[in-house]
Amino acid sequence: MCHLRLVMLIELRWRPAEKESIRRMSVPPPECLKGPMHVPSKLLMGPGPSNSPPQVHQAMLKPLLGHLHPEFTQIMDEVKEGLRYLFQTRSDVVCCVSGTGHAGMEATMCNLLEPKDIILIAENGIWGERAADMASRHEADVRIVKKPAGEVFQLDELEAALREHRPAVLFLVQGESSSGALQPIYGVGPLCQKYGALLAVDAVASLGGVPFLMDLWGVDVVYTGTQKVISAPPSMAPIAFSDRAMAKVRARKKPVRSFYADITWLANYWGCDGAPRKYHHTGPVSSVYALREALFLVCAEGLESLWARHAACAQRLYDGLADLNLQLFICDPANRTPTVTTIRVPEGVDWMKVTKYFMTKYRVEISGGLGPSAGLVWRVGLMGYNCTQDNVDLVLKIMKEALDQQSVITSKL
Amino acid sequence: MCHLRLVMLIELRWRPAEKESIRRMSVPPPECLKGPMHVPSKLLMGPGPSNSPPQVHQAMLKPLLGHLHPEFTQIMDEVKEGLRYLFQTRSDVVCCVSGTGHAGMEATMCNLLEPKDIILIAENGIWGERAADMASRHEADVRIVKKPAGEVFQLDELEAALREHRPAVLFLVQGESSSGALQPIYGVGPLCQKYGALLAVDAVASLGGVPFLMDLWGVDVVYTGTQKVISAPPSMAPIAFSDRAMAKVRARKKPVRSFYADITWLANYWGCDGAPRKYHHTGPVSSVYALREALFLVCAEGLESLWARHAACAQRLYDGLADLNLQLFICDPANRTPTVTTIRVPEGVDWMKVTKYFMTKYRVEISGGLGPSAGLVWRVGLMGYNCTQDNVDLVLKIMKEALDQQSVITSKL
Repeated sequence: MCHLRLVMLIELRWRPAEKESIRRMSVPPPECLKGPMHVPSKLLMGPGPSNSPPQVHQAMLKPLLGHLHPEFTQIMDEVKEGLRYLFQTRSDVVCCVSGTGHAGMEATMCNLLEPKDIILIAENGIWGERAADMASRHEADVRIVKKPAGEVFQLDELEAALREHRPAVLFLVQGESSSGALQPIYGVGPLCQKYGALLAVDAVASLGGVPFLMDLWGVDVVYTGTQKVISAPPSMAPIAFSDRAMAKVRARKKPVRSFYADITWLANYWGCDGAPRKYHHTGPVSSVYALREALFLVCAEGLESLWARHAACAQRLYDGLADLNLQLFICDPANRTPTVTTIRVPEGVDWMKVTKYFMTKYRVEISGGLGPSAGLVWRVGLMGYNCTQDNVDLVLKIMKEALDQQSVITSKL
Repeated sequence: MCHLRLVMLIELRWRPAEKESIRRMSVPPPECLKGPMHVPSKLLMGPGPSNSPPQVHQAMLKPLLGHLHPEFTQIMDEVKEGLRYLFQTRSDVVCCVSGTGHAGMEATMCNLLEPKDIILIAENGIWGERAADMASRHEADVRIVKKPAGEVFQLDELEAALREHRPAVLFLVQGESSSGALQPIYGVGPLCQKYGALLAVDAVASLGGVPFLMDLWGVDVVYTGTQKVISAPPSMAPIAFSDRAMAKVRARKKPVRSFYADITWLANYWGCDGAPRKYHHTGPVSSVYALREALFLVCAEGLESLWARHAACAQRLYDGLADLNLQLFICDPANRTPTVTTIRVPEGVDWMKVTKYFMTKYRVEISGGLGPSAGLVWRVGLMGYNCTQDNVDLVLKIMKEALDQQSVITSKL
């Protein structure tokens, strides 16, 4: 548009004081946005996000729809059914929080907890810590039962803690991605019911990679992220509430503090309550498309096959690491989540040089530790689209090179 | 994977009770996820989302990066600089909440407000109502100054209300998309400073379409959505906090109730505080790519041109509607946001038949009213990529047809 026409429009439209302001505009367009965006291709073999398959990216090329258009609510319904399969639940309230995995944790806390409610958090890594932080922000009475990173909680230990604390909510992390621990969930549901607690499970780093059966196991709230085994971009937090959990929400004395994460509103927007959909918020349309296509792939493969693929690839990784004389952080194979394998950094090896070697030479990501495992381990993710024998073999090959390289360098010094 | 191998893996990996559960799995993959996803192409000329340009969709084809990889934080920095330009601010704290527009409103409320803080909300449509709902969930002392939909607040009215209520925060909606009203912001900042209030502005439906100058106008918090003038998919809520606003956040007696929307954590993740980035949450990687490309286009065009384009297209729409003998809901042109035009539904016309005609015959969306304007108006959006003379002409042509059609139908009855 020519300058004269612009000036004319400014004269016509804006108030005198606004015109004066516009003339004093002082923040120019930034230099860094004058060129193209640079995005290298990497193979993400850390604890997430993992890569998405081409079909999932391509779904985001589809044109936008309105957030309440019938074609879009149909796609939301398809996502909901796919999530019911993934969570193994027939619960009414299955939907997504429009935020990444942490938004699922927050939705769990802000919906279930009122001030002074007792929540018992089984903490054996960073996710338990985060959950405690969030719960305390909601002024819950936070009780912690703690184990070292890499260990899991036994049923009798959980029962003792339930008996002692009589919490309204017990919070467990199925796949503790900071340590690689796989918390057994089976059996905990009936215990929670015995002691009048709701069972909430963080399945962000595990769901789809190991069995999880919400209804059969008596789980009351479970959430996950889209960027792990589901292999969609990070964008939403799929979440499910049991009838018992919804009863607690409906019996609240005060409204849920977050309107955005209020599960009764979300459930309505996702068509879970049988009522006509009201406008709650604008759903992340393209992200829902991507999730729909990712769930299409999950359903086409089937959960049993998905679980077995993760078990098989993890076993191949364990075997290969043993051949390299590397030790796993978690000794009992039953306590390892196949989605995130933690490998002890051998004495005298600089872990960061190894991860840098992976990235610099091959553009492959493996990670160091996080929180309690920082400096002690490498973390290798096997999740969804990236969970293949070829990727396992590539990681093993690079690991061998990186260690060889380092011993060479060390011997030179 | 063959059944035998699967059974073998199950035998090896899962505990006996888990195996039993797996055999009792009862939720099959849903039928609705066995076919392809259906997404029709529509021209979204309602109050948002609007369509995204091809470059923006294509950005989401780029491979995922880790949420703390240097190439990704570089892209976040580019987004941040683009947003500084869009908001016209040099404030340190400019970032995005990882959720859609409502998440920006919620982040504003949960960071700025502590229980009993007085917030004064200037309500002239649905967004003021929503803001009041959110603020009351945070146990703020909510004071409302109200005007009928379509009217805006004058400086003397706001000053009188500030003097009366002495709020900690004054909340205004620049573009009230339910009525099409454009609230003048210029001049309110100094008033707020005079009375010791922070000025928070919802610019979801207006930013980029009309002048907004955060620093010059003394705005303390502003947020928007990606799916309006910016023309990226709905996914994030760009937000900026002034130093004064951050001082209030830092002086809080209790932590922000939402960890996910805690602006001090978000500011760190977005590299706004000069400290090394800590892991806060996993950013929505593909959505950040899309926003980066959308901001690239905004910067290439320039704000003055963007504003003038919206003013010119809106004027063309007003003129064409006048030719059709249609009246605008808001009489004073200075009080109309060019991004959402509200048109009075003439007596005897069924508004829904008209919107259905648009959609059924042309796959073009225009909307009915919302909240206080429901049933009274049509709403036509002119936002970003969709704000073109051709689209205006198309809307006018279809509107003429739809009205002609309806008078034919009416006369037949």
